[in-house]
Amino acid sequence: MQITAVAYEAVSSLSFDDAVARVREALASEGFGVVTEIDVAATIKSKLGVEWEPYVILGACHAPSAHQALTVAPEVGVLLPCNVTVSVENGRTVVRAMRPDSVLGLLRLPELAPVGEVVGAALRRVLVACG
Amino acid sequence: MQITAVAYEAVSSLSFDDAVARVREALASEGFGVVTEIDVAATIKSKLGVEWEPYVILGACHAPSAHQALTVAPEVGVLLPCNVTVSVENGRTVVRAMRPDSVLGLLRLPELAPVGEVVGAALRRVLVACG
Repeated sequence: MQITAVAYEAVSSLSFDDAVARVREALASEGFGVVTEIDVAATIKSKLGVEWEPYVILGACHAPSAHQALTVAPEVGVLLPCNVTVSVENGRTVVRAMRPDSVLGLLRLPELAPVGEVVGAALRRVLVACG
Repeated sequence: MQITAVAYEAVSSLSFDDAVARVREALASEGFGVVTEIDVAATIKSKLGVEWEPYVILGACHAPSAHQALTVAPEVGVLLPCNVTVSVENGRTVVRAMRPDSVLGLLRLPELAPVGEVVGAALRRVLVACG
């Protein structure tokens, strides 16, 4: 697993479809609901007429953590949910998860740090399960 | 309009429902599609049994900008779409939009700066329209 400025990232040995299914299972077992879903390739194709490799964004919500973060700062909503993406890039299946510590860190509120740590650890486990 | 670390923020004179409708109209007129929608209050109620004031997260996608940003860096997907939230806080209707310059800025990629500026300017106009 790689860690970038905004994401945890793993190359998966699974096909795109299998990786999406595995991500869903792993998110559920970590207590996340998938509250949004964007088919990026289909959106780009329909809006711009441009081909794009398979790419999906799943919005993962860990309700207790979201509630905790919103209680600290209602503006956290602009940063929710935690996105997990599955894409095909140069023939490889790539799975990424937003780094909540990094994104929530923009707010510089110490009370949010534990939330970012808990959710980030769960998302890293999801990525490990999808390798 | 206030500008925080992660959001543009405006108190609206409209009711919650009217503000949501106005946000949708303003986003459409700026070329955004609403690709996701989360009823935060309903989610918190159903998952945790806790009451929460009205709060909705609309995921706004400006397809040409999203395409441009994803071409620069595919990991941008973990940060999409640009959320616009409408909430009731202490009896006031509050509208916020994610600051794309701030969130994309985490990646420290100069090629993303123009995208953040274009989308940010459009989102500020949306907020002005909802005041």
